[in-house]
Formats: sequence, structure tokens, C-alpha cells
Amino acid sequence: MKVMGLSRLVLVNPQKFPDAQAAAMAAGATDILAAAQVVSSLPEALSGTVLAVAMSARRRELATPALWAREAAAEMVAQTVHGDVALVFGNETAGLSNEELAQCRRWAMIPVNPDFSSLNVAAAVQVMCYELRLAALNPGLPPEISGAGLPATHDEIEHFVTHLEQAALGCGFLDPASPKRFTLRMRRLFSRAVLEKEEVNILRGLLAALEGKGKFRP
Amino acid sequence: MKVMGLSRLVLVNPQKFPDAQAAAMAAGATDILAAAQVVSSLPEALSGTVLAVAMSARRRELATPALWAREAAAEMVAQTVHGDVALVFGNETAGLSNEELAQCRRWAMIPVNPDFSSLNVAAAVQVMCYELRLAALNPGLPPEISGAGLPATHDEIEHFVTHLEQAALGCGFLDPASPKRFTLRMRRLFSRAVLEKEEVNILRGLLAALEGKGKFRP
Repeated sequence: MKVMGLSRLVLVNPQKFPDAQAAAMAAGATDILAAAQVVSSLPEALSGTVLAVAMSARRRELATPALWAREAAAEMVAQTVHGDVALVFGNETAGLSNEELAQCRRWAMIPVNPDFSSLNVAAAVQVMCYELRLAALNPGLPPEISGAGLPATHDEIEHFVTHLEQAALGCGFLDPASPKRFTLRMRRLFSRAVLEKEEVNILRGLLAALEGKGKFRP
Repeated sequence: MKVMGLSRLVLVNPQKFPDAQAAAMAAGATDILAAAQVVSSLPEALSGTVLAVAMSARRRELATPALWAREAAAEMVAQTVHGDVALVFGNETAGLSNEELAQCRRWAMIPVNPDFSSLNVAAAVQVMCYELRLAALNPGLPPEISGAGLPATHDEIEHFVTHLEQAALGCGFLDPASPKRFTLRMRRLFSRAVLEKEEVNILRGLLAALEGKGKFRP
């Protein structure tokens, strides 16, 4: 949950807490365990929230209609303008009882393989925390690549393609009477590749060397 | 991965395989382990695929631009029309090397909390398999609730609202000279609730009893 930016954990009647094994498995997120609130009942845990979403893998009698995980995350994030929202998980063995589920205004399911649907609680928590993170913040563009160079300009790419075409003609690979679509294809390929300046220089250097023309100088 | 409908696992140079601990942790998905293919190198694993996506949490020098997990899943599913696609994970400790990453046409990241970004490999696999499942198939509507009754008809709801209004007037709760927006509010509330037939009957029975009018008969 910390990896997905969540910080508030409420434990209802934990068998054992604090617990050395839990601390060891928290892998550095011990601040969340240290700040965890321990309560004795679900109503106490949900007190003050404006929306509680129960996670359940099983169909329930008399439940409100289920939401898929993604929709549930969107609704939870939308409701945060009104106050705290809660995501409620049962324990690994028994899940949530019908009575516990009935205390939550919504319940959500993760769409799984109907023939093999047993997601453990840690995996379900991870998927839901991930959905909440994506619902809460548009992650924007993926990070820039640190080693990435400047993009080649249009002119640099055009000069390269012309160079390539001349080299192909010069070595006899390309028949000037029937060039087919060589240049078009090359242009398409290198356009998809989004060439960098340095890459154009390397390619032109290679071409010049293959042509026996010595060094290419940009 | 089986929970998300995936079945094909390729292991590159596993330290120990088959392994009793792996079988125990597979929690019933032992068919996937039994069918797992063991190869000695990444090129062998990727041979025949049309797209390989490497998962990595770290920024890399000279990598192709990163995709977020959701976009990567969409691209992978789209490419399945052309052939097999591969999702590539490193081991828990070291992840993928730059050389391994360079063999993959794309790389993907899971958007995480930049201040605490260490997702373990099992959690990353779970998130990606979930994204692949959602990208591969629209899950459709969540399952029907088995205990859900027939929806009340418009007329049944109108009769109930009228009953409620008369009861409120009858007991003096509502002043006929100044009904305010009682009926409008009740209509709005019960409209949001999407009443079932049986619920309308229960509510009208309760009203009749509160009014001292004996049993309500639908």
C-alpha cells in the first residue's frame, strides 16, 4: 500500500499486533505499521467515513450490486471530496461475513478467471491499491530516459535518407531504373524509430565507411 | 497468473526447478508449473515472439521510452493478432540487466510512489497480469446478485410514495399547509435505492403497522 501512496491502515481485532513477522514482511514500510490504528469492531473502523467499499470474491445474497475494481476505485477517489473513504478486506481464510459486507455501501470484485479465482488477500490489496493510485492521479508521461539524446531534426533525417539511397545506388543494391519503394520504406522505418542526432551520425559514419569514403563528418 | 487467465510460463535458468516450495506456493495452480518451459537463455525464451515487454522499476540508460503498465498491456494484447507476446521479469534481487532489457522491444513501469517504489516481483507480476486480463477482455457487467429480487415497477413505487406521504400527513409529521419538499426528497431517495418488489411490500407493511391500520396487502 505504501508503494501505491496509501498510508492509513486500520486493523480490526488483529490476532497479534504488533507482530515481528509483520514488521519483517513490511520491507521498510514499518512507518505504516507503526501508525496503524487498532480497533475492536468494523463499525468503529468505518466511523466517520463517507464511503466504505468491501472487497469480495464471492457472490452474495442480498448484497448491493457489485462494482468492478476499476469502477470502485474511481468512485472511492471521487468521494474523497466529501471525506474519508475506506477499502475493507476480510482475512485470508474467511473473507468478509455477510454482516460485515452489509455495513459497506458498495462492494467490489476483481475480474478473475472464473475457473481459478482464488486471489490471495495480499494480491487483491495490491491490485486495489494500484487502481486507487491510478484513479487518484494521472501518472503523466513515463519518466524520461536519462541516456536519451536529442532527437534528430527533420533535415538531419532527410540527409541521412538521401545518403542511404545514394549508397544503395552506388553499391548496386538499388537499380536506378527500378528503385521500387526503397526510399519510402526506409523513411517509414526510421520515422518509427524516432532517430536521435547521435544515431544519425553513427549510421552515416557507417554508411560512409561501407562506401569506402572514409569518415563522415556531420 | 492463472487467476488472471494466463497459462504459459517460461523460466530462464532457474536456480532450482522443479521445486517443492514453488509447488506449495502455487496454491493449486500446479498445472502451470508442470507445463512451464525451462530454457537456458533469454533469447531462447523470446524466440518466436513478436513483442517482448520488459518490466523494470529503474530508469535505464539508452533504453527505448518507457510505457506505463496499462499502455503496455494494451499494446501487448493488440500485438497478439500477429503472434506470441512475452512479458519479461527479472529475479527479485537483481531485476533485468541492461543487456536483457535491450533484447525487449518495449519496457514498462508500474506507476508507484516515487518515495517508496520497491514493489516485489510477485506484486508486479500480479498487477501486470491483471492489466493484461482487463486489456484482453472487457469483463462486462459484474455478476448478478443471486439474492436480488425483481425490481419494483413504477406504479408500485408511486403507490408506496403516496402511502408514505399520507402516513406522514396522518401522523402529523407533515403539515398539509406546508409540505415543503418531503415527497420530492423521498422519491429521490428511493429512486437512488432502486427498490425491489419485496422491499416495497416490507416498507408498506411497516407503514401500515405504524399507522395502526393492521396488515398491508399488496
